[in-house]
Amino acid sequence: MNNRILKLKSQFPQDTSNFLILNNTNITYFTGFNGAAALLIPQDGENVLYVSETNFEQAKHEVKNAKIEKMNRGENLFQKISQHTEISVKNKLSIDSISIENWKILTKLVNNGNSLAVSSNIVKGLRAIKTSDEIELIRKACKIADIGITTAYEIVEPGISEQEVMAEVEYAMRKQGSNGVAFETIVTSGANSAFPHGTCRRQTIMDGDLVVIDLGATVSYYRSDITRTIVAGKISGKQQEIYGTVKATQDLAIKAIRAGIKAAEIDTVARTIIGRTGFRDCFVHNLGHGIGLDVHEAPMLRPDSDDILEEGNVVTVEPGIYIVGFGGIRIEDTVLVTKDGAEKLTNAAYTLQTN
Amino acid sequence: MNNRILKLKSQFPQDTSNFLILNNTNITYFTGFNGAAALLIPQDGENVLYVSETNFEQAKHEVKNAKIEKMNRGENLFQKISQHTEISVKNKLSIDSISIENWKILTKLVNNGNSLAVSSNIVKGLRAIKTSDEIELIRKACKIADIGITTAYEIVEPGISEQEVMAEVEYAMRKQGSNGVAFETIVTSGANSAFPHGTCRRQTIMDGDLVVIDLGATVSYYRSDITRTIVAGKISGKQQEIYGTVKATQDLAIKAIRAGIKAAEIDTVARTIIGRTGFRDCFVHNLGHGIGLDVHEAPMLRPDSDDILEEGNVVTVEPGIYIVGFGGIRIEDTVLVTKDGAEKLTNAAYTLQTN
Repeated sequence: MNNRILKLKSQFPQDTSNFLILNNTNITYFTGFNGAAALLIPQDGENVLYVSETNFEQAKHEVKNAKIEKMNRGENLFQKISQHTEISVKNKLSIDSISIENWKILTKLVNNGNSLAVSSNIVKGLRAIKTSDEIELIRKACKIADIGITTAYEIVEPGISEQEVMAEVEYAMRKQGSNGVAFETIVTSGANSAFPHGTCRRQTIMDGDLVVIDLGATVSYYRSDITRTIVAGKISGKQQEIYGTVKATQDLAIKAIRAGIKAAEIDTVARTIIGRTGFRDCFVHNLGHGIGLDVHEAPMLRPDSDDILEEGNVVTVEPGIYIVGFGGIRIEDTVLVTKDGAEKLTNAAYTLQTN
Repeated sequence: MNNRILKLKSQFPQDTSNFLILNNTNITYFTGFNGAAALLIPQDGENVLYVSETNFEQAKHEVKNAKIEKMNRGENLFQKISQHTEISVKNKLSIDSISIENWKILTKLVNNGNSLAVSSNIVKGLRAIKTSDEIELIRKACKIADIGITTAYEIVEPGISEQEVMAEVEYAMRKQGSNGVAFETIVTSGANSAFPHGTCRRQTIMDGDLVVIDLGATVSYYRSDITRTIVAGKISGKQQEIYGTVKATQDLAIKAIRAGIKAAEIDTVARTIIGRTGFRDCFVHNLGHGIGLDVHEAPMLRPDSDDILEEGNVVTVEPGIYIVGFGGIRIEDTVLVTKDGAEKLTNAAYTLQTN
């Protein structure tokens, strides 16, 4: 955690003397703690973690790299910070993210908006490149997600409900040590599967239905993300054909990944392959996204991305084809960007067929 | 949903012609849909729901009270809105919540910050008073949470891990139709239970441990929240004594609830009772919070709350006593504020003893 803070300090914007972290996930990134209101990182001096009375004792117990400051009832966080911190145009306070309401409060307190700066990109950039410790946790979360998918292959059959599949896959992941789902599990079947983020409707899965299962586990706040599409019962020729297209698309996109390449180019590889088939307009989302403490973070694999892939990025690669009235097929894995290529961190089987 | 929009329109701030809803949960409140970027509600004319290509077809399928506008790749939401909407000092655009970055973009686009207003309190106020439909969904979520707690009473025993308890209670709730957890389930045992938001550590529960189980279910986006504290094995006199205090505190606080009373007063009832015991400084959090689409929403039951309880509020009542090194005891229920009192929506048994 201290290395992360040192890296941030080396990237302080000009004239910044203090960096205020308000985003919860960013606070966790720098402290390993998930129940604080703010973290103040001065260029020189001790870090200060502001914690309400509720989580004060826990923070004292768990956080090693910051002084824990109790927020008493009725105390205003921004007043407290502005009173104890020199903030001026030459000693700016940079902030990772803030609502307009809090921005207005803070501006009044420091008497000069030019003493404040918002710099969300610096922490975003740090978080995008994972350390070996972080990769290890994501790897664990990915192994657990694989077990979730394996469970789905075992239980999906005509007659089971989307809801029951969700219950079983989440239970299997919990039993393997997941600290909770990485995001709301998606199980959509039949026509409903044509909606990439379709809502589970307690629908009974029918013979011949496409079933999209998109799930992830969490280990020490780090997340994984995987999707497989399964057919309950008899597989049709069209299902098999589209599955083949999506699988080939994912294979070639992953093959194209390496440090130094533009993220947009990887999206283009995928979009070009699908564009050559009859399903050009059916790939209705981005190819993928970075993942770590948040399920969606930098870098983004999409046509309008400015990101360049770097060693240590962890991203999803998830092409899909969605046809209203017919259903959808998506295949997704979490992969680690390496110097020369990509390593798959999720490794569940690829097949439309249930076990 | 349309009634909710009519109520909002009747409360538009002065000179507001359009209300822009950017908060995800607020969009769900007004449309029943959970995958849109923004909702524009004009005083006169058709509502517009802005949706990315990913969720466009699903929105068309599911949303009945707004025109669905597809956000094409590269299109800026705020540019789109400012081009198609008259925004001026006399025809203000009010916004429910916005980041400082987006505020700056929007201010530039409309050429005048005075044409914009941020009014988070209006929607907050509407959402605090639940309709009978909303109460019905919360009631269902509460019944499922009761089953989660019943499961905990059945399985907690020396030797089981916090992680296993979480797996079983979440599984039981899913099987009963929960659409997912209302928040991250808390299972803390032994000394760890002294931290109100303690993290599950795969710790094995030992004989005589206090075990705090705080969980909730979700039904059609509406949430429930309940806590029970159980002792694994032999119960000590001190545990029984503190439990009695917490239970008596909750009883009297719930008894004091009725429409028209200040929320702060209910907190004071609880804080006074605990203050008379030796545990004055051990009740380290608010008495409770509103719950609905969000797990924490208005009104707030805390000493510095300005809220006045109203018929149709749904709030938690959750006194607790936390002693570092010994452990914690919290009892929480979700209750509906009625004209003359309060109705408990969660109804699991109260006892330190496992089944």
